[in-house]
Amino acid sequence: MIDPVELTAELIRCPSITPEEGGAIQLLETRLKALGFAASRCDREGIANLHARIGEGAPVFGFAGHTDVVPPGDPADWTRPPFSGEIAGGELWGRGAVDMKSGVAAFVAAVAAWREAGGEGSVALLITGDEEGSSTDGTPAILDWMAANGEGLDHCLVGEPTCPERLGEMIKIGRRGSMTANFIATGRQGHTAYPHRAANPLPPLVRLLDRLASRELDQGTEHFDPSTLALTTIDTGNPASNVIPERARATCNIRFNDAHTSKKLAMWMLEEAAAASAGTGVRIESSFRASGESFITEPGRLSDVIAAAAEAETGLTPTLSTTGGTSDARFIKAICPVAEFGLVGRTMHQVDERAPVEEIRALARIYQGVLERYFDGG
Amino acid sequence: MIDPVELTAELIRCPSITPEEGGAIQLLETRLKALGFAASRCDREGIANLHARIGEGAPVFGFAGHTDVVPPGDPADWTRPPFSGEIAGGELWGRGAVDMKSGVAAFVAAVAAWREAGGEGSVALLITGDEEGSSTDGTPAILDWMAANGEGLDHCLVGEPTCPERLGEMIKIGRRGSMTANFIATGRQGHTAYPHRAANPLPPLVRLLDRLASRELDQGTEHFDPSTLALTTIDTGNPASNVIPERARATCNIRFNDAHTSKKLAMWMLEEAAAASAGTGVRIESSFRASGESFITEPGRLSDVIAAAAEAETGLTPTLSTTGGTSDARFIKAICPVAEFGLVGRTMHQVDERAPVEEIRALARIYQGVLERYFDGG
Ligand SMILES: [Zn+2]
Ligand SMILES: [Zn+2]
Repeated sequence: MIDPVELTAELIRCPSITPEEGGAIQLLETRLKALGFAASRCDREGIANLHARIGEGAPVFGFAGHTDVVPPGDPADWTRPPFSGEIAGGELWGRGAVDMKSGVAAFVAAVAAWREAGGEGSVALLITGDEEGSSTDGTPAILDWMAANGEGLDHCLVGEPTCPERLGEMIKIGRRGSMTANFIATGRQGHTAYPHRAANPLPPLVRLLDRLASRELDQGTEHFDPSTLALTTIDTGNPASNVIPERARATCNIRFNDAHTSKKLAMWMLEEAAAASAGTGVRIESSFRASGESFITEPGRLSDVIAAAAEAETGLTPTLSTTGGTSDARFIKAICPVAEFGLVGRTMHQVDERAPVEEIRALARIYQGVLERYFDGG
Repeated sequence: MIDPVELTAELIRCPSITPEEGGAIQLLETRLKALGFAASRCDREGIANLHARIGEGAPVFGFAGHTDVVPPGDPADWTRPPFSGEIAGGELWGRGAVDMKSGVAAFVAAVAAWREAGGEGSVALLITGDEEGSSTDGTPAILDWMAANGEGLDHCLVGEPTCPERLGEMIKIGRRGSMTANFIATGRQGHTAYPHRAANPLPPLVRLLDRLASRELDQGTEHFDPSTLALTTIDTGNPASNVIPERARATCNIRFNDAHTSKKLAMWMLEEAAAASAGTGVRIESSFRASGESFITEPGRLSDVIAAAAEAETGLTPTLSTTGGTSDARFIKAICPVAEFGLVGRTMHQVDERAPVEEIRALARIYQGVLERYFDGG
């Protein structure tokens, strides 16, 4: 028997502020080996990552998560030290108590309990030390290692916090994509008394931004809310009210659903930039950075199994949602159906991050229920 | 006889960088008294100003100008020291050689020569030390003094440089107005993944600015070019591409003709700001600063007299123009018809400002010709 609260507290005491390993991956490697897992480090570029598998044959069920945490800010702002892992008032306190050392500990406790109860099947854990940072050498490194070593997954559960208020409320079956566009408009400086001798970059830029911001990207799709575009900054830095500036910059961020791809959105913005600047003597340079495409795992066996296990524990029927920001599920989606289910996220990334100890234990029981249902039904 | 080149050189040697008097007003006061003028200082708030009158009865013809100059920048950039007043290559060098110590010296030389030749009539000189600065305590202080002392003007010539390439080309009979509008759009900060929880100030701001910049204010009027509106800056200062900012600012500058007043333009912009922000949860605060209304002195006796004198000297027929920036003519317009005529402005406000000595002498002869024609015809 492994107590997931105990293990979460031990992990919290590892100061694994992204991208530091902090002892957390090492601790898990030791514990998982002791439980009979074949554990392999998939470190890359100084990032610690772990792949651990138990059981033989197909199918393979995966649990994915991370041990790195966001910085605690000023520890003096915390009621209890952020890396102490104290239990008080029925809650486990500390950075990572919600996002998501508790989720990782619940994976381990669930697999151990499921096997002690006679469960059989193949389970793999994908644990990265680089989810809160750039993610470049985290989950992608594990997936590369798996491809190179003939390891696969049939379905995967990511243990990020997903519930807004109460455990059991929400499963995430997809995520919107996110991309950022930067525009630099360059014209010719001049005096406001003689605007025809200048080429003002601001009129085509505001025309472009008005067009982008007023476009209805879609009205939502079957599983997604409508896509949104937010202008985030426009800057010129011209202090002289009688001078037409040479250059201005603007940025917007798009959260998009499965009606779009970042490539098609970039094409659209390039066309709008060309139309807004045509004949003005102003050049608008556009650059784009996509931090993830949208993805969806259609409701089906994976979400059914998670929902049934969650409902059995909590009495709530989880909503299947695609809201919120990005997660490493976007990488795993490339190899198998993936869904996310975890704790109530309210205090994540905040001062005094903490989780009720009973909620952590309930989460481990739900994960155990997922394995039971998955392999009974398999 | 007064040599206007000599007097200009003496004035250049007075380092009257705005708002410093630098000895220039004092020098003129002494010379004008010696010529028989009744000279009165109309200093206000540390600014030196001079009203000088000669002759009795109506009409009174006015010459208006300034002795303050813009800073020379780094004297090392100049071929000759900016306050030396040297003559070389047939040109008088120094800050103010064009704008407009030469014009003031030409007033004095013209009145002296006209009276020596038997001219009779009333002439007033309005000389300020604050035209290049805020202008608040310059010409307005002289006009206040005149009103308080029963002094008036029937017509006035401002001696600013007006000719683009050759002396005699251009008389200015009006000026466009200038106003600056500042907009502050304030919404509610938020995360780009949840834009409905925020109120983004940028979309209504770019909508407003696009509407302002695309409006054709007019197509020009009888004596004026079309009015123009130039966006000069938009600033947000938000470095985070996943954050919707709380606030953004923008500025535009309008140069407007006699189809508009600053008050009506402000009303229009307030209406556009209200329309652009309606229903968005964003508040746009607008503020306006008018540095001058447009004005026009219809072609007539004043411009006829100046044009005839200029043509007699140069052989060119001056264009009657309303182009360019503001001048103190905007204040004098309130009490009498006013027009501007002076040297070629090419080097004004620049390094190596200088004027051909023969052009300065020709300008003095033109001013003398103006007096002859004005009082013969009066
Ligand atoms: Zn997380
Ligand atoms: Zn001037």
